[in-house]
Amino acid sequence: MQPLHQEQFASDNYSGACPEVLHALNETNQGYARAYGDDVYTKAAADGLRALFGVPCEVFFVFNGTAANSLALASLCQSYHSVVCHELSHIETDECGAPQFFSNGMKLLLSKEGDGKITPASITRLVTKRTDLHYPKPKVVSLTQSTETGMVYSLEELRAIKACAKTHGLKLHIDGARLANALASLHVSPKTFVEESGVDVLSFGGTKNGMFLGEAVVFFDKALAEDFEYRCKQAGQLASKMRYISAQWLGLLKDDVWLKNARHANAMAAYFSETVARIEGVKLLFPTQSNAVFIELDPKRIEKLAQEGWLFYTFIGTGGVRFVFSWDATKARVDALIETIKKG
Amino acid sequence: MQPLHQEQFASDNYSGACPEVLHALNETNQGYARAYGDDVYTKAAADGLRALFGVPCEVFFVFNGTAANSLALASLCQSYHSVVCHELSHIETDECGAPQFFSNGMKLLLSKEGDGKITPASITRLVTKRTDLHYPKPKVVSLTQSTETGMVYSLEELRAIKACAKTHGLKLHIDGARLANALASLHVSPKTFVEESGVDVLSFGGTKNGMFLGEAVVFFDKALAEDFEYRCKQAGQLASKMRYISAQWLGLLKDDVWLKNARHANAMAAYFSETVARIEGVKLLFPTQSNAVFIELDPKRIEKLAQEGWLFYTFIGTGGVRFVFSWDATKARVDALIETIKKG
Amino acid sequence: MQPLHQEQFASDNYSGACPEVLHALNETNQGYARAYGDDVYTKAAADGLRALFGVPCEVFFVFNGTAANSLALASLCQSYHSVVCHELSHIETDECGAPQFFSNGMKLLLSKEGDGKITPASITRLVTKRTDLHYPKPKVVSLTQSTETGMVYSLEELRAIKACAKTHGLKLHIDGARLANALASLHVSPKTFVEESGVDVLSFGGTKNGMFLGEAVVFFDKALAEDFEYRCKQAGQLASKMRYISAQWLGLLKDDVWLKNARHANAMAAYFSETVARIEGVKLLFPTQSNAVFIELDPKRIEKLAQEGWLFYTFIGTGGVRFVFSWDATKARVDALIETIKKG
Amino acid sequence: MQPLHQEQFASDNYSGACPEVLHALNETNQGYARAYGDDVYTKAAADGLRALFGVPCEVFFVFNGTAANSLALASLCQSYHSVVCHELSHIETDECGAPQFFSNGMKLLLSKEGDGKITPASITRLVTKRTDLHYPKPKVVSLTQSTETGMVYSLEELRAIKACAKTHGLKLHIDGARLANALASLHVSPKTFVEESGVDVLSFGGTKNGMFLGEAVVFFDKALAEDFEYRCKQAGQLASKMRYISAQWLGLLKDDVWLKNARHANAMAAYFSETVARIEGVKLLFPTQSNAVFIELDPKRIEKLAQEGWLFYTFIGTGGVRFVFSWDATKARVDALIETIKKG
Repeated sequence: MQPLHQEQFASDNYSGACPEVLHALNETNQGYARAYGDDVYTKAAADGLRALFGVPCEVFFVFNGTAANSLALASLCQSYHSVVCHELSHIETDECGAPQFFSNGMKLLLSKEGDGKITPASITRLVTKRTDLHYPKPKVVSLTQSTETGMVYSLEELRAIKACAKTHGLKLHIDGARLANALASLHVSPKTFVEESGVDVLSFGGTKNGMFLGEAVVFFDKALAEDFEYRCKQAGQLASKMRYISAQWLGLLKDDVWLKNARHANAMAAYFSETVARIEGVKLLFPTQSNAVFIELDPKRIEKLAQEGWLFYTFIGTGGVRFVFSWDATKARVDALIETIKKG
Repeated sequence: MQPLHQEQFASDNYSGACPEVLHALNETNQGYARAYGDDVYTKAAADGLRALFGVPCEVFFVFNGTAANSLALASLCQSYHSVVCHELSHIETDECGAPQFFSNGMKLLLSKEGDGKITPASITRLVTKRTDLHYPKPKVVSLTQSTETGMVYSLEELRAIKACAKTHGLKLHIDGARLANALASLHVSPKTFVEESGVDVLSFGGTKNGMFLGEAVVFFDKALAEDFEYRCKQAGQLASKMRYISAQWLGLLKDDVWLKNARHANAMAAYFSETVARIEGVKLLFPTQSNAVFIELDPKRIEKLAQEGWLFYTFIGTGGVRFVFSWDATKARVDALIETIKKG
Repeated sequence: MQPLHQEQFASDNYSGACPEVLHALNETNQGYARAYGDDVYTKAAADGLRALFGVPCEVFFVFNGTAANSLALASLCQSYHSVVCHELSHIETDECGAPQFFSNGMKLLLSKEGDGKITPASITRLVTKRTDLHYPKPKVVSLTQSTETGMVYSLEELRAIKACAKTHGLKLHIDGARLANALASLHVSPKTFVEESGVDVLSFGGTKNGMFLGEAVVFFDKALAEDFEYRCKQAGQLASKMRYISAQWLGLLKDDVWLKNARHANAMAAYFSETVARIEGVKLLFPTQSNAVFIELDPKRIEKLAQEGWLFYTFIGTGGVRFVFSWDATKARVDALIETIKKG
Repeated sequence: MQPLHQEQFASDNYSGACPEVLHALNETNQGYARAYGDDVYTKAAADGLRALFGVPCEVFFVFNGTAANSLALASLCQSYHSVVCHELSHIETDECGAPQFFSNGMKLLLSKEGDGKITPASITRLVTKRTDLHYPKPKVVSLTQSTETGMVYSLEELRAIKACAKTHGLKLHIDGARLANALASLHVSPKTFVEESGVDVLSFGGTKNGMFLGEAVVFFDKALAEDFEYRCKQAGQLASKMRYISAQWLGLLKDDVWLKNARHANAMAAYFSETVARIEGVKLLFPTQSNAVFIELDPKRIEKLAQEGWLFYTFIGTGGVRFVFSWDATKARVDALIETIKKG
């Protein structure tokens, strides 16, 4: 079978695994290992993540982001609780109700502000709107870093949210499917990010950063991790041959491959964004701060893109087109995309 | 990092992926593919499984056996229904309540017959014991082929269960985590197996057969598959980079690797079983019909095994020791195990 | 203990049971009856409801409206499905996530049109907005008759919704917590209502109509009622001494007490509405079509109401005050309320 | 409609409400009260129960025993936890999987000892059998007082269970559907019972004790009651006209009606038990310690009972017949039953 497509920028899920991950996987495929995570690779990967974050934490490995987010949230709330998030957040728009399924009915309180970020003001408004028992009780704030619109919360914004969450007695979950891109963008260490944001539970993404599959759930409030291994098992998220998930993490962690991958992706997005913004009739919908770029295009240009075989998603009303750049995006192909838009 | 252990027979989850699977995975790691299963590899793998079974069916890919079983059963019953299975079945003993979680409370009615197989008599007894609405209503029979005790249901046994299930209006689920081993043992085609057993939904195992990870849920009663893709997505079982699951299946399906792997594992089990049974003081607990062998050993021998670094599980009361042989078990190492037992 | 309050119009839940219901309850409290609904009262009540609707249907008795709605919806959808309803609907605003709990995660798609009614246009828009498997699949329309804003769907509106639901393959649930008031308002028989609306499952309210407690779930699509008795039992909604629920229904059904109660409540609402609308500075927020009246009042008047001991809820933005009239509302007390508003 | 049956002893659910409860209900049916428990009756009933138990506790009212048990247990465990109980316990045999439904999959670990009581030995055995994450983790002991076999745990037995539960870090739930009968039997105060048993959460039964319907969930570990009102609401267990539930409790609490009712029921059971045990061929299956008597009868006698219109349940193998005596059992009718058995 041949490669399926030329390089595409519809999603960072369209790209494959990076060489270091592939290498680690192949290396691991030798001999025998205990199952269900009781192996040296898994221990090393968990230790590696703990070292990366540099603060006490508990680490669990699951298969995908839907599971990471849903199980993290289920550990923070009961079925009659609610979670504040943005209406554009992945947990609201793209997980087919998984967060509600895993917590058996919890409610998402949706902030509708325009750019995909939640703010202390919207949190306060949402959690004080109803305080009677006929409506789920707020327990959690969940934000996405980098956001679904490609933006990145600054440390200042995160501190403000932390304070607000504290005021209202809310726990903080962060969907970090693209946290690597956000950290690369912010030029801060994972440790600083964790400390400044006060995140209680983090979904840390591996798949979009260059793995085949695999996400980590990291508890910085360790008390919340109680029996979480049982939750994962019962939820169908415990790999029997766990070493193959763990090995991929080792591939990402060694020599900061995760950061290099993220930087490259961000750089390609920045290049695309800057160049395309200069084209007449092209408008950036959000500031480009990570690896995703949203632009407004006229219908003719959108048609042209499709005609020339480009894959992409349209979002957020007429004219919004998203491009996401992966760890392996090539400048030549980005230029080809720009060219199509230019002449479109 | 070095290989973790010498070859072990504690579980077929301890072995790695077979070369064909590894090769397929590496081959697939080129270029770009649409996410979430909308790619040529996934289409080819589903087509391949349909061709393998030779009858109309719907195929879905999930990450592991717990999910395959739990989602399959959830599609067959509501929370107030019950499922007949054996008390030694994996869904009862080793999935941390996942079947009950995914169906939100369904009950397992446990057959307690000795050898791990359910029979029409036990099904009838269990489903007629209670018929009032204060007790969950029986809807499904779930059996494991090959069983957790390493035995294999004959076609005759399966036909009898099929008839019994029909009489009581029950659907039939088969946990086929090791179905390959059972088919190799029975010398029947997948098609014959499906037709004779009348299985409605099958959990078809890839992991133990030589994949890194991956199981398939196959609906032979296609009406039951309605919206199952939504169920998988919501349950956190839809891989974004699905091609890496599908590719592994292609590796198993091509040139009947799945069958070769199973045959080899069975052959090693048979060799071990026959040889060890001749040792004085060693007793086979069940007839060896697939790739698992259960033997009764005295405590001294068990201690000796542990001393010499062998990994194994003890089951089913004092003295029961399980050995499971993988697609890559080597005769030399089986002989070493036999030797340890002999001198123990 | 003395009566708690003077007559109030904050909710039709604040009033007691009507004399006929009280009488029936007392009458039933003689001798012995089989438990869990296997008694003559329960049979008579179910027969009575079937006779009332005049079409084939299955009847189940539950304790309250939250359970009636949640169990009805759970019988129409799976956890990965969605239900179209209005954003002001009780299932969205006042059941603490019960519908999502009982169906283990289903999503409500909210119509935001102003007056509390859903329309074919909003249904179509909501169910066609997303058709990918990352978002729950629409299966049901749920409307409230009479609505939470006190309005009543006309037969014409219901027929249009029926046709729209059919087009999109959706089942129709009606929350009839105040259906009696709607039927009284429409001057149509229950049979006509059922046939014209095409309702598949109805939550039929008893509590607000003059019972102590008790609601019925009525399936007009009888196939959907399969095993519903098990669902009720498992959900903690099967009364052991069921006769006391059933007897209340008999009290309401005999001599059309249900209709008389509803007519009286509607008449009091109409009287209040007409009179109060003539007061300067008072504005009706919705046409008064059943037993609830929403008016806009200035803050001074709202304060005055509170000062004089009136209980009421404020809704739907600044100035919206709701009054709901019960089967036993007295003209004298309605006049007293009007007087307070007038002088306020 | 005429009384349904002559007095029967098939279940204490077959009898009606006692006069004091009926009176309290009628008294309450005057005037208006705030809904959802925000009324003086509900406050008085909760205060009354707190006074009854004489220790700090939180009180919640629900509709029936299935809900009381299921919601209590759900507050003590997550879906991946397990609860030790007896295989004859109501939560296992007669609630159609409700405990598993409300906790979304929790597992019951069944003690199979003969008489319906669990012991420290069986608790220890059940909770130490499996300690790996492939099997739900034990969190709770649930016992029934009085038991489903009509026996009563002594204070000594309860203290031993308390100590055992503490050793293993388990919370203690007591299903007290017939706690009144047990307390009457033990001649101890509710306070002594609570302190000696160390019960964390109690399902306290009202229905069988003389109410129309209604049970209380009482938390003696108040921290466990956090947000329990939301749990009740979401679970469809919050009555809108709550005063009618509360008023019944007031009827039971005033002048210790609950205790008189229980004593009478126990006395009738004792009389029946003693008398019938002297009949040749009749064997008591369990010591009679509360209001239920189990006797072994030959098939001819069982047939005779049925012929003469007696209603009863057969349990626990051939020949086991249960009779349960209510607050209003009459000696004349008990004598009639004895007579039938005698001549049978």
